[in-house]
Amino acid sequence: MPVHRRQHERSCYFAAVPAALDTVPAEPGTIDGVRRLLGLAPGQDATPDAGTKGGRTREAILAAGVALACRTGLGGLTIGALAADVGMSKSGMFAHFGSKEALQLAVVEAAAREFATEVVVPALHAPRGEPRVLALLEGWLECGLLRRPGGCLIVKASAELDEQPGPVRDRLRDLHLELAGAIARIFAGGVAEGHFRPDADSGQFAVDLHAVMLGFYHQHRMLGDPRAADRARAAVAALLAAARTTSGEAR
Amino acid sequence: MPVHRRQHERSCYFAAVPAALDTVPAEPGTIDGVRRLLGLAPGQDATPDAGTKGGRTREAILAAGVALACRTGLGGLTIGALAADVGMSKSGMFAHFGSKEALQLAVVEAAAREFATEVVVPALHAPRGEPRVLALLEGWLECGLLRRPGGCLIVKASAELDEQPGPVRDRLRDLHLELAGAIARIFAGGVAEGHFRPDADSGQFAVDLHAVMLGFYHQHRMLGDPRAADRARAAVAALLAAARTTSGEAR
Repeated sequence: MPVHRRQHERSCYFAAVPAALDTVPAEPGTIDGVRRLLGLAPGQDATPDAGTKGGRTREAILAAGVALACRTGLGGLTIGALAADVGMSKSGMFAHFGSKEALQLAVVEAAAREFATEVVVPALHAPRGEPRVLALLEGWLECGLLRRPGGCLIVKASAELDEQPGPVRDRLRDLHLELAGAIARIFAGGVAEGHFRPDADSGQFAVDLHAVMLGFYHQHRMLGDPRAADRARAAVAALLAAARTTSGEAR
Repeated sequence: MPVHRRQHERSCYFAAVPAALDTVPAEPGTIDGVRRLLGLAPGQDATPDAGTKGGRTREAILAAGVALACRTGLGGLTIGALAADVGMSKSGMFAHFGSKEALQLAVVEAAAREFATEVVVPALHAPRGEPRVLALLEGWLECGLLRRPGGCLIVKASAELDEQPGPVRDRLRDLHLELAGAIARIFAGGVAEGHFRPDADSGQFAVDLHAVMLGFYHQHRMLGDPRAADRARAAVAALLAAARTTSGEAR
């Protein structure tokens, strides 16, 4: 299905978010959930330094950091490596972030904002229920097919960090819990609209959809399978068919 | 369901495989597919140096390498890091492998052998069809719940290497194609037994099951979800319910 997506530059995603949120006819809780995914407090619509020259420089550095971490893993994202990548002095990069861990945390945050802005928020413009679930799927597939770094990093960093305790892992875990919550609320909108059975399990759907997307990234990126997106669409079609049925056999 | 698993030590998995393969009432093609997963040629039942002292030393080093790579990623698996980990001199380790890339290749191979021996081969002892699919699922879940390094590495290394061209990525891709083929053949046995619809798509099932397991590793390892295994079981139950139905709605 064609997806209603607002075309916005990577560099203005802070600015695009409040306008997107204002016009969303979403179920209660979704907007603040998306704000949390974006690193904003409930009711807050932009980070404090958005729009300043320093804020824009930092944003450009973070975009390069997301892309570098997507290629090398978060473990390869050091102050020195990113400084070399963007042509900045190591001391200049250090002045921006102060430590490798602070840099990694900022890059994880930027990846989550990019993913929320490019995948989750546009889906909220589709009608509530099954159309919104499918818009989320198509936006996520597009993010993967175009190898957008934010989505890539959110997917990859989980596998990389799951045995490396610390603040970066903790933050990534919290972001994934927020994302799962947002998916569950979007699916629950379909229950409220009568598209899915009243007893359809929105928490299970969130786990299932995330699994389908992990499988899609594997098929597309590791195996180079030209049918990767269609495999994912077939898997989600089966999940939604099971949610629509009244036999209760599957769950 | 309880799974029939032969208890064997990690260190004797080379020896366990031929005996396991001899007694399997499997569909044609499965055994050689499993041999390829194990890095053996068709008809071959053990690696050339299995059982020698040098072979056993190398095997012990590789087991440590799989565990190290599971914690730090394949990128962190250097001659020096593994030498320090097993208390061997760097030059001694170099004599065994010759290069970081050769070490990484050998470790990927060892992880695949471990996964095939501990998850795939035991499942082949279950009756063909749905019981064998469920045995594969339970063995895979057990591998993840017990954090066995081989399964962990096969899952994680794909996300790590998908944008890093080279022989290690190529070998990992080939192993994943073999694994997908083995899953598809195990599912196809259920079509042959009449457990699943004749038009059930075994290639789609292989993609779907792998996705469920990627999701399980994420739920279990990153999120620490105590329901992770039950979420995966529910997802596979839904896949099998759709394969049994004759409505044809889902696929």
